[in-house]
Amino acid sequence: MEDNLHFDGAGKPRMVDVSRKHPTHRTATATGEIELGEKGLAALGSSGKGPVETTAALAGIQAAKRTWELIPLCHPLPLEKVDVVFDLCDATLRCTCTVKGEARTGFEMEAMTGAAIALLTVYDMLKAVDKGMTIGGIHLLEKTGGKSGDWKCAP
Amino acid sequence: MEDNLHFDGAGKPRMVDVSRKHPTHRTATATGEIELGEKGLAALGSSGKGPVETTAALAGIQAAKRTWELIPLCHPLPLEKVDVVFDLCDATLRCTCTVKGEARTGFEMEAMTGAAIALLTVYDMLKAVDKGMTIGGIHLLEKTGGKSGDWKCAP
Amino acid sequence: MEDNLHFDGAGKPRMVDVSRKHPTHRTATATGEIELGEKGLAALGSSGKGPVETTAALAGIQAAKRTWELIPLCHPLPLEKVDVVFDLCDATLRCTCTVKGEARTGFEMEAMTGAAIALLTVYDMLKAVDKGMTIGGIHLLEKTGGKSGDWKCAP
Amino acid sequence: MEDNLHFDGAGKPRMVDVSRKHPTHRTATATGEIELGEKGLAALGSSGKGPVETTAALAGIQAAKRTWELIPLCHPLPLEKVDVVFDLCDATLRCTCTVKGEARTGFEMEAMTGAAIALLTVYDMLKAVDKGMTIGGIHLLEKTGGKSGDWKCAP
Amino acid sequence: MEDNLHFDGAGKPRMVDVSRKHPTHRTATATGEIELGEKGLAALGSSGKGPVETTAALAGIQAAKRTWELIPLCHPLPLEKVDVVFDLCDATLRCTCTVKGEARTGFEMEAMTGAAIALLTVYDMLKAVDKGMTIGGIHLLEKTGGKSGDWKCAP
Amino acid sequence: MEDNLHFDGAGKPRMVDVSRKHPTHRTATATGEIELGEKGLAALGSSGKGPVETTAALAGIQAAKRTWELIPLCHPLPLEKVDVVFDLCDATLRCTCTVKGEARTGFEMEAMTGAAIALLTVYDMLKAVDKGMTIGGIHLLEKTGGKSGDWKCAP
Repeated sequence: MEDNLHFDGAGKPRMVDVSRKHPTHRTATATGEIELGEKGLAALGSSGKGPVETTAALAGIQAAKRTWELIPLCHPLPLEKVDVVFDLCDATLRCTCTVKGEARTGFEMEAMTGAAIALLTVYDMLKAVDKGMTIGGIHLLEKTGGKSGDWKCAP
Repeated sequence: MEDNLHFDGAGKPRMVDVSRKHPTHRTATATGEIELGEKGLAALGSSGKGPVETTAALAGIQAAKRTWELIPLCHPLPLEKVDVVFDLCDATLRCTCTVKGEARTGFEMEAMTGAAIALLTVYDMLKAVDKGMTIGGIHLLEKTGGKSGDWKCAP
Repeated sequence: MEDNLHFDGAGKPRMVDVSRKHPTHRTATATGEIELGEKGLAALGSSGKGPVETTAALAGIQAAKRTWELIPLCHPLPLEKVDVVFDLCDATLRCTCTVKGEARTGFEMEAMTGAAIALLTVYDMLKAVDKGMTIGGIHLLEKTGGKSGDWKCAP
Repeated sequence: MEDNLHFDGAGKPRMVDVSRKHPTHRTATATGEIELGEKGLAALGSSGKGPVETTAALAGIQAAKRTWELIPLCHPLPLEKVDVVFDLCDATLRCTCTVKGEARTGFEMEAMTGAAIALLTVYDMLKAVDKGMTIGGIHLLEKTGGKSGDWKCAP
Repeated sequence: MEDNLHFDGAGKPRMVDVSRKHPTHRTATATGEIELGEKGLAALGSSGKGPVETTAALAGIQAAKRTWELIPLCHPLPLEKVDVVFDLCDATLRCTCTVKGEARTGFEMEAMTGAAIALLTVYDMLKAVDKGMTIGGIHLLEKTGGKSGDWKCAP
Repeated sequence: MEDNLHFDGAGKPRMVDVSRKHPTHRTATATGEIELGEKGLAALGSSGKGPVETTAALAGIQAAKRTWELIPLCHPLPLEKVDVVFDLCDATLRCTCTVKGEARTGFEMEAMTGAAIALLTVYDMLKAVDKGMTIGGIHLLEKTGGKSGDWKCAP
């Protein structure tokens, strides 16, 4: 596992060599949330598919595709599906991003990046009414495929 | 204030018109953190300027410059300074990103995006030893400049 | 006027030198349309602010900001406003893109590129029901500002 | 076919899941044209391989490779060939873009985007002599490969 | 001068703070060369404005505009002119890139990057006939403007 | 071999058609160097893994991934490993970049681009103390895989 650390024993950053791995079907799902407060909640509206969620979902999908440009040591990967969904519970808007593809390494960073950029976009869409909103709880829910096998977040 | 919402009354997303504003000197500072856990903490090392922080700081600086590509309705802005610093307190690695520039609109999203991508890069660098780390507490600390004046996060 | 051609007398492409011009407030508006056909029209829906128009408007705004990356000899410009609107007339969906900013050269290409990418996105959103749709009529409606003054498309 | 629409029944944009498809060899060809007018025609020159066409062809090839960045719900695809050619007939400059590759989904948008950006570049190269030129007739000529089989534009 | 080093005393990379500087008119010129060998020279042709130089000049112009994306600690700058020219002397193809603009910091890296990417593109265009070509002599010729004043390469 | 030239007999640039080739495992290694001078050498420090080399190595890795965006006629390729290392010999800092992947065409340009951008980044990090440094000797050391077989730079 430590062979996959993104720096070597001498402290030099490195892109992990995945050339000896075989491509396998993989998925990764990450989640995160933003606390809206009263004003943000009012501006969001109640439909669940208004301009805030739509814009944020598109931003998350686009960012997931560009993860290899943003995270320095990530490999460029062929994404076959990105899904970004939102659920509102009280004043907490939760975003979940799922990525699928066939590759030599996993899509964890694509799912995490997609969720994070989607949530930042929600903040951007609503910050005119409330600059104090906080984004948190960004973590990996699960991943499937690959040599290390399936993994689920401890409940 | 609501004139600055990123969608109109009919629910259409819009890029806010800043052409009648005058450019002013502005700053924005955002922060966030990642909970490392024992394994992540051990892999991070203790120096505070090792490969994880260095790579993440550079990723945050680069992402701040690309905010207008990532957040759909952001304006392209001339960043004059981006600073990304890390502080370790117990197993929590805090990241703070400050952006400066002279522009017609603020650098809040640049600071938020810089902090978020820096923290995602920390996760990427260490996920080989622990996939369960959580990123949270991403929020704006303060901003200065612009017509709406200075703003500080409530303590 | 010929000094602004994007190639010299020897046939070498060139980026026009705008360094001796003064920045002025400018706008540019371009338009274009897509012929939808029955199936495309049915899939579009009637609301005028459904997922097709919303996604396409966002794509147009983002593309306008990236014009300097796409059109080889364009200058990077500080866009202060991008607006993409759609109007449906019978089976023709018209897209109009307006760009504003203060710069040494005009925003014509930003407006043209925004309209074109928005229309390509409409095609992409609907091509599952009709691959035969045609995009056309992409032209500049008007521009204001700059040394050469205002310009309007002949009616 | 409607499973491939880029939004679901509730009006939410979505990236189509292609993970269960097998990669096949595919091609797509799109075309479009720009009406030059007398001044544009004179500035273009007669060689057919001058700076306007060369710059525009390169811009089209580069844009085809970046289609997944421009069209929000497109998949990143491994292009194996992009060809952009121009034909001049009277004052109409026609551009045809062909893309090839092995993938789980088609290259229609890559061909359409390559043609559109090439034509916008022609406009940019010549707009100093004529701002009134119109780009039109952008449509798919044919595509081959994939589960839905070959398709040709009705004559 | 050392205040402008791109890392601090503790070894942390940093983006230099230019917010207290005033924008001034600036230019920078860099040069470099590629040794072609017999085969490369034959494939290049003799016109001096063939497809190799044209493609490379466009690539250099585009890369100069993207310098801030490529060099991690560079500021995004408003380029007002990029010029890439080639001179052939025996089997050495020399490339010179000049960049102009009004900014708080200089265009040295834009000129250096433009020249380097143009030369890499020459290599790419000709590598089918000779993989052994060497690119060298990339250095700054001169820069003007800014607080530190004009600078010329020692002859 | 001449079929792979990046322009045709009529002088039109072209992206080589690789669709009939089979993907094979490939590597490419390129090198280059920068002459530091006394001041640059002093600012670099002696550790060999300080901020200059670390930042430059990351920039080289990121640029290698973006080669297809920078070099107009390059294909987008799935990089599986990028390695950038530095060796200091007297006042010459040598950079070597190795790229691996399975593709229909080679990674020569990725290795060359990675080395060049890493060296430009070294220049950027140190130019505050010496603008006169020269980058040179950028050439391909070797490549393996593909139909044309292995190739090594003549000693």
